[in-house]
Amino acid sequence: MSGDYGRAFAALRAQAGEAWRDYTRHAFVEGLGDGSLPREAFLHYLRQDYVFLVHFSRAWALAVVKSETHAEMLAAVGTVNALVAEEMQLHVEICAQAGIPADALFATTERPENLAYTRFVLEAGYSGDLLDLLAALAPCVMGYGEIGARLQAEASSECYADWIGTYAGEDYQSSCSAVGELLDSALVRRLGPEFETSPRWERLCRTFRTATELEVQFWQMGLTP
Amino acid sequence: MSGDYGRAFAALRAQAGEAWRDYTRHAFVEGLGDGSLPREAFLHYLRQDYVFLVHFSRAWALAVVKSETHAEMLAAVGTVNALVAEEMQLHVEICAQAGIPADALFATTERPENLAYTRFVLEAGYSGDLLDLLAALAPCVMGYGEIGARLQAEASSECYADWIGTYAGEDYQSSCSAVGELLDSALVRRLGPEFETSPRWERLCRTFRTATELEVQFWQMGLTP
Amino acid sequence: MSGDYGRAFAALRAQAGEAWRDYTRHAFVEGLGDGSLPREAFLHYLRQDYVFLVHFSRAWALAVVKSETHAEMLAAVGTVNALVAEEMQLHVEICAQAGIPADALFATTERPENLAYTRFVLEAGYSGDLLDLLAALAPCVMGYGEIGARLQAEASSECYADWIGTYAGEDYQSSCSAVGELLDSALVRRLGPEFETSPRWERLCRTFRTATELEVQFWQMGLTP
Amino acid sequence: MSGDYGRAFAALRAQAGEAWRDYTRHAFVEGLGDGSLPREAFLHYLRQDYVFLVHFSRAWALAVVKSETHAEMLAAVGTVNALVAEEMQLHVEICAQAGIPADALFATTERPENLAYTRFVLEAGYSGDLLDLLAALAPCVMGYGEIGARLQAEASSECYADWIGTYAGEDYQSSCSAVGELLDSALVRRLGPEFETSPRWERLCRTFRTATELEVQFWQMGLTP
Repeated sequence: MSGDYGRAFAALRAQAGEAWRDYTRHAFVEGLGDGSLPREAFLHYLRQDYVFLVHFSRAWALAVVKSETHAEMLAAVGTVNALVAEEMQLHVEICAQAGIPADALFATTERPENLAYTRFVLEAGYSGDLLDLLAALAPCVMGYGEIGARLQAEASSECYADWIGTYAGEDYQSSCSAVGELLDSALVRRLGPEFETSPRWERLCRTFRTATELEVQFWQMGLTP
Repeated sequence: MSGDYGRAFAALRAQAGEAWRDYTRHAFVEGLGDGSLPREAFLHYLRQDYVFLVHFSRAWALAVVKSETHAEMLAAVGTVNALVAEEMQLHVEICAQAGIPADALFATTERPENLAYTRFVLEAGYSGDLLDLLAALAPCVMGYGEIGARLQAEASSECYADWIGTYAGEDYQSSCSAVGELLDSALVRRLGPEFETSPRWERLCRTFRTATELEVQFWQMGLTP
Repeated sequence: MSGDYGRAFAALRAQAGEAWRDYTRHAFVEGLGDGSLPREAFLHYLRQDYVFLVHFSRAWALAVVKSETHAEMLAAVGTVNALVAEEMQLHVEICAQAGIPADALFATTERPENLAYTRFVLEAGYSGDLLDLLAALAPCVMGYGEIGARLQAEASSECYADWIGTYAGEDYQSSCSAVGELLDSALVRRLGPEFETSPRWERLCRTFRTATELEVQFWQMGLTP
Repeated sequence: MSGDYGRAFAALRAQAGEAWRDYTRHAFVEGLGDGSLPREAFLHYLRQDYVFLVHFSRAWALAVVKSETHAEMLAAVGTVNALVAEEMQLHVEICAQAGIPADALFATTERPENLAYTRFVLEAGYSGDLLDLLAALAPCVMGYGEIGARLQAEASSECYADWIGTYAGEDYQSSCSAVGELLDSALVRRLGPEFETSPRWERLCRTFRTATELEVQFWQMGLTP
């Protein structure tokens, strides 16, 4: 069900095993697919996700700072731009349509599960190099791509079709592929073509797994407005 | 009940209100005082606290990096040294006496509440200046000082007298005073003698409050091995 | 001769005094205006400036990371995008026209004066907050705007009309105004409406002045291929 | 003539070739050995070196932040402590004896060659991981060790015997060995036992070489008070 998001992602995803399944098949996700997710929970999630996007955009900007080549910079800048200029704006509009004015959205109090996740990602990036940062960013980017694509094919309700459509859509799916390519090439550049044999690989796996577990907590938070 | 940890700390503590009380009078703390805290919970806490200290020491080292004067550097270096060379070593010894060998201690799996707290502190420091970092570090340093001093006076059990004695002791109390002085002088240097009137003060208050809430979560985690 | 780049810039520029004049009226600059600058020196400068732009873009991406509001993020993202997607590309094209293929451009050896400047800016940003970073970024952004506008009015030769036109042009001038607004609003947000009375102001002035002096060195380097 | 500062240092030093020789056999160094270095140049150097040590200590504190193991933290903390509590104090005393009061020392204006070097090291550390930082720190630490040891054996004058004795002394030499061990073990931990075959090795070599070139500039600055 996973799109082709590259070689490193496939390996990272495989080693995250159960945590990856808990994340991509969480009750919140299933509720998006069959329409059983209460509207209140969805709107609560959207508001928290806006706060999340603020820090996630900052983390992608950090990926520009930590880039070593023009190609890496371009890939990271493209993502920052899409997040700040488009995805955050999309949230503002969806919330407005749902009766949450921008002011209320901007004033959302950050939940601890949200804070834990974004600070983990940013700190991984500040303390490490681009690889550490990308390993922490990948679960969100690609997980949403995978969830969107699966729900598009399987959803039994139209309730959350817009949300599903966004992440299943060509734009988002090609972002995932671009991030997959960035990850693969950044790994080869720094650790060589056999990057899975580098001692650093294990730590990158751990970072990816922890970020995946923090995604599980994020969905869980979504269920408890 | 609070020691004299300086002017800024008193103001930050006052505005944290209920969160500060929830932290310093948490059931875990009361259990240390009356001896009702299960040994298992205490040892679980100690192990997590060791992992905490690793990242907390890194955060204090970041305070050296973010210092602007020799006095700031000296104060921060002193704290790093005390944490890495002494407090972490103390944990190793206490755990060894309790039957937890160093290997097991080092292999402790970090709990999400632990991760949330330390990454929040480190990120505040990386993204901001020394003031943002100190506002995030202060609740732990001074809260433990306050808890230690109060329990020393009030404790009805000898069970955790060693732990209480460490934080009530002269060494730890004078570290708290030194950090209080560092905080006051760093604020005056950057924001002027009326630092509470600076627009930045509100953000520093929020950082202090969030760190305090993360301390509450940490104690809560301590109760659930 | 200076455009209206805001209140803080005017104050920072005034206090930089002689250094600002040395920078904006450097022999290299005058040579661009009267056409006396040897072509070889110009091409050498262009190649170094490309390397400069790589790190300057990274520094602007760091400004996104250090932003505290959506407006700050948007302003910084816009600049990163303009630098990475446009200005760097422009350099590639100009160099290609001048007979320097992209490969040779990318392989340019960084001169010490170049390295000193960009690492100073990045370190100011990493160690401080958004204000420290903007104070280090401003001399380049606004100085080029001022130089472009003046040479457009005064140039006695068409030799470097393209270069002059870029920085005198509406696009670049409005970027300068946008950065001026970002600087003003970031200062008011953090230090209050009377930001020049904050103790931090002096340090920000020093950072601006040092960056200006590093610009002088950069032009000087330009004269010695 | 080089002490045994480990395997990685030996390899890095070898590839730095001429730059390493220019650094460790600079006219300033030879002048320390034969006593021909003017006292004025030496005192000028000492003052700049004090400013250097401030930032160099901050960079070593960053190494604590970027550590991944307790052993790495301990090694880095030890160095920070030695620098901040001892070496900086030593400079204050030597300068005082030479008639430069502490106030004047603290007020030293940083020379561009000094700024370039320290900001390069700090930025390498912030943007990269511990390896990038150590590669930038090593030339100063080990170069002084090598210079001290050689001059101790070869010096034809007693003029600068104190300075030479400090760096030739057992304390300093064993710091160099400790940093060499830290470098070797950090490399093996992250890149494996054959770390020279990792794609990252080339970048680390470049960082080491650039830092070495910045040392040459620093001596050159020393000759021009």
